[in-house]
Amino acid sequence: MLKECLENVRAAVPLVHNITNYVTVNDVANILLACGGSPIMSDDEGDVEDITSICGGLNINIGTLNKNTIPAMFLAGRRANALGHKVLLDPVGAGASKLRTETALSLLRDVKFDAVRGNISEIKTLAFGSGKTSGVDANVADRVTEENLEDSVAFVKSFAAACRCIVAVTGAIDLVSDGDRCYVIRNGRAEMGRITGTGCQLSGMMTAFLVANPEKPLEACAAAVCAMGLAGEIGWKNMQTGDGNSTYRNRIIDAIYNMDGDALERGAKYEIL
Amino acid sequence: MLKECLENVRAAVPLVHNITNYVTVNDVANILLACGGSPIMSDDEGDVEDITSICGGLNINIGTLNKNTIPAMFLAGRRANALGHKVLLDPVGAGASKLRTETALSLLRDVKFDAVRGNISEIKTLAFGSGKTSGVDANVADRVTEENLEDSVAFVKSFAAACRCIVAVTGAIDLVSDGDRCYVIRNGRAEMGRITGTGCQLSGMMTAFLVANPEKPLEACAAAVCAMGLAGEIGWKNMQTGDGNSTYRNRIIDAIYNMDGDALERGAKYEIL
Amino acid sequence: MLKECLENVRAAVPLVHNITNYVTVNDVANILLACGGSPIMSDDEGDVEDITSICGGLNINIGTLNKNTIPAMFLAGRRANALGHKVLLDPVGAGASKLRTETALSLLRDVKFDAVRGNISEIKTLAFGSGKTSGVDANVADRVTEENLEDSVAFVKSFAAACRCIVAVTGAIDLVSDGDRCYVIRNGRAEMGRITGTGCQLSGMMTAFLVANPEKPLEACAAAVCAMGLAGEIGWKNMQTGDGNSTYRNRIIDAIYNMDGDALERGAKYEIL
Repeated sequence: MLKECLENVRAAVPLVHNITNYVTVNDVANILLACGGSPIMSDDEGDVEDITSICGGLNINIGTLNKNTIPAMFLAGRRANALGHKVLLDPVGAGASKLRTETALSLLRDVKFDAVRGNISEIKTLAFGSGKTSGVDANVADRVTEENLEDSVAFVKSFAAACRCIVAVTGAIDLVSDGDRCYVIRNGRAEMGRITGTGCQLSGMMTAFLVANPEKPLEACAAAVCAMGLAGEIGWKNMQTGDGNSTYRNRIIDAIYNMDGDALERGAKYEIL
Repeated sequence: MLKECLENVRAAVPLVHNITNYVTVNDVANILLACGGSPIMSDDEGDVEDITSICGGLNINIGTLNKNTIPAMFLAGRRANALGHKVLLDPVGAGASKLRTETALSLLRDVKFDAVRGNISEIKTLAFGSGKTSGVDANVADRVTEENLEDSVAFVKSFAAACRCIVAVTGAIDLVSDGDRCYVIRNGRAEMGRITGTGCQLSGMMTAFLVANPEKPLEACAAAVCAMGLAGEIGWKNMQTGDGNSTYRNRIIDAIYNMDGDALERGAKYEIL
Repeated sequence: MLKECLENVRAAVPLVHNITNYVTVNDVANILLACGGSPIMSDDEGDVEDITSICGGLNINIGTLNKNTIPAMFLAGRRANALGHKVLLDPVGAGASKLRTETALSLLRDVKFDAVRGNISEIKTLAFGSGKTSGVDANVADRVTEENLEDSVAFVKSFAAACRCIVAVTGAIDLVSDGDRCYVIRNGRAEMGRITGTGCQLSGMMTAFLVANPEKPLEACAAAVCAMGLAGEIGWKNMQTGDGNSTYRNRIIDAIYNMDGDALERGAKYEIL
């Protein structure tokens, strides 16, 4: 199943419109190309409606939101909705500032999202209307662990049901739910947290997977999450003496580039609760 | 001839002002340094005229244009013209949105460009006033092939003559013309299309080549195009097990860094029609 | 002493708010993670005060300043001052345009900085109110050499005393002074100048060192400068056939990631004048 999801991306070459932050945008573009998609970036109010119209999916990431790009997010989101395109929200830093929290909440109200992906603190902020996010990282107290797994799964399922979309909470353990079922994914490595933007990259890739697998959004998102974590494991295996986080970043994107459906199927570590 | 063009860049260390997109800007800066130039980025209306004044060339790339940077492009372009600097246009996504198409066409009317570089769909959009660009990639139907080469060369020559500047159409086969002659360049590899920004990088580098070779703009642009394609070939040869598009990006810039004039002369594959 | 400074960063994981240019922002984020800090980027007037409030330090870099981000720099700077956070200014291109020079001078007047880091031309511009910076590089005539070292040290000490903060002038020889003492640092390699953003990266890292070593700002800044130069040396030793400036960039960040306090202490080459 995961295998087919990746192969469908490679076959469909989905064009993904990204309104994303300037910190990790290059990596988002390269991982979209690596997985088989095609990225385009556009964030001006006068440009986004045309650009999103020619794409199959829209990835909205609020990592460096500003007064010019926020209205563009709404315009693009509504247009993508009108066209039946897949739309994903990455609420970077929701909980860390009022503007980020309110923008993410307003987007959730005004735009119909197919998926929301964030760390646990960001997602809790969306669910409860306020929160405490440590910069762009999850608050330690919030983290999903084996100990609180049952409660965490229940929370993610319940928020996904309320949003009527896929919710993906990523961290040491990743949870991906459509409100009914929840993938609990144990791929990845802790060292991925020492690279900027693995979350942003995953959001871009997840949008491509959604576009290429329109009938099975839960599996599409779970496949993207497994692929990212597995790439982190493969990339780490390829590390050589002297390599650090900057090279690791390249090796993860490279691992996506070289990953085929069989490798994903074999390497994915998940259970469905 | 190509050899001298590269050596002149290394000797002159041309300072290039880039108003460019935030997706690939870091790679543009690093490839400018790799080829022997010196990059500076500035895109605010209040800053661009001063900055372009101290440079030798201006590279305008509309990849993430917005309402603040568009007027800056015009201001900088006119100032660069007044100072007799070399100016290049990279019409990223012209044909993909009204704003991109109109901005590129307006720039072509208001600013005297020494060179325009894009994919075939972008250049056709400029030539015919409208077009269909697949995001930031050329439309398959437009692509330059051995089969339509004669017509493609005629088109590029005719558009270059109309613009009175160098026109470079890059893709599997690259065409570079001044309206009279046309370099048909067969360097490069298809895998370069799986990296974001090789076109943007080439535009930056081409601007440096133009500045350092003011009397022979056609040869300067052809040399930059050959260098980029050759770097794609060398970079690919240096790929190791596990490497993918992210590492390939680094290896291409590295290949420019290590390329000397003799290697360029030997490796360039072109004919002049 | 330098050893402790690095170890304190690793222990404290300081959260650093960066208002920085979009050219080198990804590398700034990754080197902050490499040294043990945690980066967050935010540059909108409506967002920066909240974001800087949850951080320990603020890194203001004017490399691609614009009319939207300039007021955000002032707002964030004042808020950081009010909260007693560490604040650093990187006056990229001061002397190259009126807007950059005036913005840097205004920031120096309005915001209390703990450190200022730039090349010698940028710092001379701040000291004398005007200057000639060659794009984003130091003017050759300004450069700190063994021949003019005594005068250069006197200048940096005097400007640091006037600013009442740490002043770091980086180049072939780095000078870091608090007005009283001056570290003269001879780590690093000339090839670092062929990578975009080593200065920006250092400014980000220096902010993290300041936050984690609040009682000894001079040593903190000197340790960051030594670490960056030493990483340039280690990264260069790790270069392989075919590697160039793009890979060198990764290897430098990787070297910071892998550097421990003992290696820094052993590798640092400095005298105190």
